[in-house]
Amino acid sequence: MTNIAICAPATPITREQQAALEELVSAEFPGHRVTFHDQCFERAGHFAGDDLRRLTALLDCANDPAFDVVWFAKGGYGSNRIAEAAVAQMNAAARAKTFVGFSDCGYLLAALYRAGIGQSVHGSMPVSARSEGGREAIRRVLKWLGGDTSGVEPSLDGTTPAAAFNLITLAMIAGTPLMPDLTGHVVMVEEVAEHLYAIDRMFFHLAGTLPRLAGLRLGSVTDVPENYVEFGQSEEDIARFWCDRAGIPYLGRALIGHTSANRVVPFGLASPPSRT
Amino acid sequence: MTNIAICAPATPITREQQAALEELVSAEFPGHRVTFHDQCFERAGHFAGDDLRRLTALLDCANDPAFDVVWFAKGGYGSNRIAEAAVAQMNAAARAKTFVGFSDCGYLLAALYRAGIGQSVHGSMPVSARSEGGREAIRRVLKWLGGDTSGVEPSLDGTTPAAAFNLITLAMIAGTPLMPDLTGHVVMVEEVAEHLYAIDRMFFHLAGTLPRLAGLRLGSVTDVPENYVEFGQSEEDIARFWCDRAGIPYLGRALIGHTSANRVVPFGLASPPSRT
Repeated sequence: MTNIAICAPATPITREQQAALEELVSAEFPGHRVTFHDQCFERAGHFAGDDLRRLTALLDCANDPAFDVVWFAKGGYGSNRIAEAAVAQMNAAARAKTFVGFSDCGYLLAALYRAGIGQSVHGSMPVSARSEGGREAIRRVLKWLGGDTSGVEPSLDGTTPAAAFNLITLAMIAGTPLMPDLTGHVVMVEEVAEHLYAIDRMFFHLAGTLPRLAGLRLGSVTDVPENYVEFGQSEEDIARFWCDRAGIPYLGRALIGHTSANRVVPFGLASPPSRT
Repeated sequence: MTNIAICAPATPITREQQAALEELVSAEFPGHRVTFHDQCFERAGHFAGDDLRRLTALLDCANDPAFDVVWFAKGGYGSNRIAEAAVAQMNAAARAKTFVGFSDCGYLLAALYRAGIGQSVHGSMPVSARSEGGREAIRRVLKWLGGDTSGVEPSLDGTTPAAAFNLITLAMIAGTPLMPDLTGHVVMVEEVAEHLYAIDRMFFHLAGTLPRLAGLRLGSVTDVPENYVEFGQSEEDIARFWCDRAGIPYLGRALIGHTSANRVVPFGLASPPSRT
């Protein structure tokens, strides 16, 4: 039995999303049990409860030895505001756990990875359980938690450490006390709903701040808003351009992003290659 | 006679904007002469010419001893892509010049200030010459260049060094090779057309990366898009919150921003207090 606690460090989910995930788990993953923290459904302005409430719920889940996994319910924005305090207050039980999420929850994955607490894993989240595509992505996480690595990002080779981030999230982490040492890593980045000029700007920032990477892979870049003028370069042109300027090997695309194709990326060297 | 060269390190302006500025200068500032570089009107995708073209035009203006001032025509996005190369190729004539602009052109002001080249000045730009409010803001720059400091940001006291930036611009500069040492400075920030959650996120980044400041002032935050939910804090709440977390004295508002109230902020200690 894998015991999975779910909390919302950024923005809230709905009871319908909870029900959809519970249905999926009970129908297809009898070896897993999911427990939603009540905090997942609360709201304070933009957030799923104020900072202290979200921090407390995260610590309830992380520090409870009854749980094996903490799964972040949804991104949005807000986990950065509690990440440092959360890491500082985690106990021995937290250090044995797996933490799963992506997008805005990358702040927590980064802080945990930096602190060497548990296993950070980029993967889809409970909020997506109401669509067929979302369930496909969620199944990869649930399978991975059960030892089936078929949903792992296919480029992972088990010999080069990896990490995966939303682009603006990584840009905002770089240089702060949350930033892990990504030297020698393959870093994968994805983005959603940002203009191409903003993507170029974030690559500029990362080109000037990232350490010596083993390489960079570009995930999907979706829902790019239309601008008053064509930017003139594609997202892959932009990634190549800045990798060239920064001396980072550009390794091609990765199957991560805000899509149903989103694959699992365990941070570091946690995962063997995907077997299909 | 103050000889002012105008180029566009980011995005292009129109001939109508040129004509409006020339009319204002000839009608009200007979002691100034403005010379527009042809590059101001070129376009390559998003930019006013490709990187090499924009770089060359900027160096034409900066390195020509005939000019006293380089005035950036417009922001938008793109000066970050040429800032490092520009600073590396500037000559002794550039070191005697004043450089004026704001918004995206803050990348250049930062790089120049870091390199100790000339005098960086936050001020409105030629692109705004077609509206009465824009002309008001532009007059402050032209007056300041003529020795009339009435348009200087009123909080400048001549004893604490200052700098002014667009928020996302400063967030993207922080930690990169363009970043000047702002220790002991009063830093003023303004923003336009960003969601409040994105403003909160940028303050998070700056709280984790800025050095020990003398203080922070918040300029105007305009054209905030509506989000699906109220953020729950005003822009000033956000600035205070992150200043408190980072141990930065919050000093109140500043008259800078994407508005006709935009004041002149000479970087460092260049300016005496404003006299009205």
